[in-house]
Amino acid sequence: MLQLCLIGIGTGNPKHLTQEAVEAIRAQDLILIPHKGAGKDDLAGLRQAICAEVLTGVAHPPKIVEFDLPVRDPATADYRQRVDNWHDAIAEVWQATLAAHLPEGGQAGFLVWGDPSLYDSTMRIAERLKTRMEMQMRVIPGITSIQALTAAHGVPLNHIGAPVQITTGRRLRDTGWPMGCDTLVIMLDGECSFQSIAAPERVMIHWSAYAGMANEINIAGRLSEVQEEILATRARARAEHGWIMDIYLLERLG
Amino acid sequence: MLQLCLIGIGTGNPKHLTQEAVEAIRAQDLILIPHKGAGKDDLAGLRQAICAEVLTGVAHPPKIVEFDLPVRDPATADYRQRVDNWHDAIAEVWQATLAAHLPEGGQAGFLVWGDPSLYDSTMRIAERLKTRMEMQMRVIPGITSIQALTAAHGVPLNHIGAPVQITTGRRLRDTGWPMGCDTLVIMLDGECSFQSIAAPERVMIHWSAYAGMANEINIAGRLSEVQEEILATRARARAEHGWIMDIYLLERLG
Repeated sequence: MLQLCLIGIGTGNPKHLTQEAVEAIRAQDLILIPHKGAGKDDLAGLRQAICAEVLTGVAHPPKIVEFDLPVRDPATADYRQRVDNWHDAIAEVWQATLAAHLPEGGQAGFLVWGDPSLYDSTMRIAERLKTRMEMQMRVIPGITSIQALTAAHGVPLNHIGAPVQITTGRRLRDTGWPMGCDTLVIMLDGECSFQSIAAPERVMIHWSAYAGMANEINIAGRLSEVQEEILATRARARAEHGWIMDIYLLERLG
Repeated sequence: MLQLCLIGIGTGNPKHLTQEAVEAIRAQDLILIPHKGAGKDDLAGLRQAICAEVLTGVAHPPKIVEFDLPVRDPATADYRQRVDNWHDAIAEVWQATLAAHLPEGGQAGFLVWGDPSLYDSTMRIAERLKTRMEMQMRVIPGITSIQALTAAHGVPLNHIGAPVQITTGRRLRDTGWPMGCDTLVIMLDGECSFQSIAAPERVMIHWSAYAGMANEINIAGRLSEVQEEILATRARARAEHGWIMDIYLLERLG
């Protein structure tokens, strides 16, 4: 019987690991690390570094196997369909990799950036695998980039008794500021969608890139006053590192 | 100079502690533990237990001091004003306790349930203290009950590319289901506000009490089919433990 363990590892700071995550990593037979291809990101390297640190001195460490992540087919126009096909392709690669390295079953772990529940596809791919083979799934929570963001800036996520919406850059651009909610967290935003906000002088932004990591960058202020600085900083950091992960909190002022 | 450290400790599972939190607890001169009075909750006891575990074998452990948390004045009718006055009263108790135990300054830590940024007043009280004395603040992120909830049920928080709103039971009752968002996390709900939802047969609920703790209880299903079970289970657990903390995820079906 296969047991899949989805282990939230936080946002790149090895000290974000919980004791539960450390024990789970040590207990696996196999750790699978996705590889996007050279230069795409540092995440495979970071996962390897976390494993190396956590597994030092462990008597029977898990085998660590990297696998090439399939790419999304840009020819598929529909976004949902494209993601759907991509997840199927990943489930297939998982199945082949598991068959090669754990033919008798056992415990296989995935190190998931942040937390497995938030804008991450690992849990959905695991659900697909369930339709293909007998398996159980366990989820270990991890620090998300939302918490890394608010900790970095030392600000609360919510106002007292008030709601917070977590959404994407795409939705902010396409459907505007959601009604009835003055606080937003924007994730998965490759296009600095805060530029689409109509009255930037009435919005506060707390922006972080590489939140929680050694090269973390934080900028905060009235959107109208800091958006140019964020655009320039983001472009520079992305060029320098070859990739970027950023997130921001928006608050509409009364 | 006083340095306040707000340390997210997760939701009661000592294994939720991150390495960063463990190191921060060990590095403090003083740990302040709020006390609500006998029988109100087990949280002071849990914080003591976490300290005892983390500080075992530490050469110069911080001094641990409990202080009595002031109570909110029910005579103040306005909710915001009541909370405001309460936070002022707490800041005053903090200041007196710090003056008594750290008269020369140093590092004082608070163990914050979940994460300091999410529906927690510790950061706001620290901001009040800043207006009364010279101090710096550091925030250590922790696992929130949201992540404990989704991990317990093994479900994603969001649908692909879709938003999630984190809100309170009170708001769900008072303003109904927010527009444009099919997934909600309800926190701070003492009154099972899911009962106010108009079409419970079109809503999925994932409910957890004591999420992440040894006595965790999980119920999931179509709201129309499980709400009676949740009400009965919640009442029973609350009577048994003397207190309850619960949280739930609601998804409106298409």
